[in-house]
Amino acid sequence: MSTSRIRREVDEALLAFVDRQRPALLRISGDLAPLMSALDALLGGGKRLRPAFCYWGWRAAGGADGPDIVTAAASLELLQASALIHDDVMDSSDTRRGQPSVHRRFEALHRAQSWPGDGEAFGGGAAILLGDLCLAWSGEMFETCGLADAVRGRGRAVYDLMRTEVMCGQYLDMLEGTRGEASVSTALRVVEYKSAKYTIERPLHLGAALAGARPDVISALASYGLPLGIAFQLRDDVLGVFGDPAETGKPAGDDLREGKRTVLIALTLERASAPQAAALRRRLGDPDLDRPGVDELRAIIQETGGLTACEAMIERYLGEAEKALEAAPITTEAHEALSALAVAATTRVT
Amino acid sequence: MSTSRIRREVDEALLAFVDRQRPALLRISGDLAPLMSALDALLGGGKRLRPAFCYWGWRAAGGADGPDIVTAAASLELLQASALIHDDVMDSSDTRRGQPSVHRRFEALHRAQSWPGDGEAFGGGAAILLGDLCLAWSGEMFETCGLADAVRGRGRAVYDLMRTEVMCGQYLDMLEGTRGEASVSTALRVVEYKSAKYTIERPLHLGAALAGARPDVISALASYGLPLGIAFQLRDDVLGVFGDPAETGKPAGDDLREGKRTVLIALTLERASAPQAAALRRRLGDPDLDRPGVDELRAIIQETGGLTACEAMIERYLGEAEKALEAAPITTEAHEALSALAVAATTRVT
Repeated sequence: MSTSRIRREVDEALLAFVDRQRPALLRISGDLAPLMSALDALLGGGKRLRPAFCYWGWRAAGGADGPDIVTAAASLELLQASALIHDDVMDSSDTRRGQPSVHRRFEALHRAQSWPGDGEAFGGGAAILLGDLCLAWSGEMFETCGLADAVRGRGRAVYDLMRTEVMCGQYLDMLEGTRGEASVSTALRVVEYKSAKYTIERPLHLGAALAGARPDVISALASYGLPLGIAFQLRDDVLGVFGDPAETGKPAGDDLREGKRTVLIALTLERASAPQAAALRRRLGDPDLDRPGVDELRAIIQETGGLTACEAMIERYLGEAEKALEAAPITTEAHEALSALAVAATTRVT
Repeated sequence: MSTSRIRREVDEALLAFVDRQRPALLRISGDLAPLMSALDALLGGGKRLRPAFCYWGWRAAGGADGPDIVTAAASLELLQASALIHDDVMDSSDTRRGQPSVHRRFEALHRAQSWPGDGEAFGGGAAILLGDLCLAWSGEMFETCGLADAVRGRGRAVYDLMRTEVMCGQYLDMLEGTRGEASVSTALRVVEYKSAKYTIERPLHLGAALAGARPDVISALASYGLPLGIAFQLRDDVLGVFGDPAETGKPAGDDLREGKRTVLIALTLERASAPQAAALRRRLGDPDLDRPGVDELRAIIQETGGLTACEAMIERYLGEAEKALEAAPITTEAHEALSALAVAATTRVT
């Protein structure tokens, strides 16, 4: 199965699941329609990376193609929707996937309807609840995917661990952001749990566990997935500063405005002169950072060699992943798909 | 099994589950310890009503006593913990179960550690994430309760429906709060989904479905559970205005300060003179409402006859529940336990 075909099938499975929930919600009340529209809009975007890794983890371990594993894999997209919606509330982000974030969308509804009361609180509350709904639905979609009880039972421990890890990673990320400066190694620990395991290693592991993979296959996939996941997040950090808004779905330099304490920033601070470090610290996290401000910080990240160091780190982790993939005891087809996914997950788009 | 014994066993099952998660979290990072302490504190309180109804739904349908159903039932307490944590963020509540709410607890941690950055945002973010963790863990606890796949499979649709209903009910509740005035019938619709089904009808239904109940048993339990659930919420509304802080775990008159658009308030407004209605509308939702202000609003709710009407409504729904219970085709033991639970859920404590 090609990566574009699996993407299409994941989209179809998601749509089918959401379309089964829709009438149940509207039966409770027509007032719930905006929750469904916000979810439809959010699910319209996204690269479906986690479902793809889950599906190919299954195939790599010898699982046969079929609609049930695609549905199980697609459930990860609802987990991701929940994480994004709540993350945007926590970061007060205005945009996601090129559209208003869910809480901003409900603030706009509040304004458009001229409701009394606090629109920001309404938007935040609606987003918390829609995120909760997506989290509950991801579990429901996984458990009702059609795979036999015994098959789902083999994957459940990984599924549970993945959810715990991503939530803990998010907390650690927020904690580092609040404490201020993070070292390269602290920032990497956040990357590991919040992103690398959650986006790549665990989805692969889940697919493989569902298929009843041998320990050597699980271990080979971890040796490929974890470094690839780190490379993926480092690429995302670079895009958060230098990326094209048309590609990232976020305004230019949005990570700088949010003051994210990424590995890229830590690498820059390690290399910065005192005036460069002072300038970076002063402007990082300024919600009013304008385009010249973004350009100033971009220049510091480039001139210190922070960007070059980060690109070198991406190359190193990617190389490690590729080496592990070469040695992995999996089918040629899975090998080719995972090789293509490694490129897709870490490609430079600027 | 007595209601106090089931309560103790639910507590033990919860503690055992949380204690299994604890080392996994601390292995990720010692920085996660405050999440566990906040959860321990929250789970120290609570009446365990939902697990009790779930357990007795199972017994009513002929299920045998045993630890697995107690664990499945106890998982509802984690779902409830998630709902409470997120609800307190949405309502900006300071207290829960007589202690600081989770977001306030993390605000205090931020202050105590003299971290830079925004303490309120940190508290809110930590609470969103801990609520997410509790929601994920409730599903995990249910799926790993020890009941056979086929048994859990019989209950899963109810479990899923219950989660969707409570989240939708919460949204409708917030919507009515934002739109301002709710009629008695609108407020009752919120009560039905946010509270009556979620607290009583669905837990009973879940237990019964897990036990493979006949349709007439399910239907009899619904005829008992839904009106009892409405009576429970109306009692809670009365306690939110008139309750003793030592019993409610919330400051006196907290629902007035939060501006909750309860059935009690709707009944009062229906009966209020123009000056009474104006006074109520002016002060309701004022976060700075002091004790004399609370007393003024309490007087209006009593003098209009709003309180009497609400008490009469509680009696009516409770009577309906008791009548349905009498006719239910269930064992004498289940009948007695559900009768005692009806009293526990709706008792006047002032």
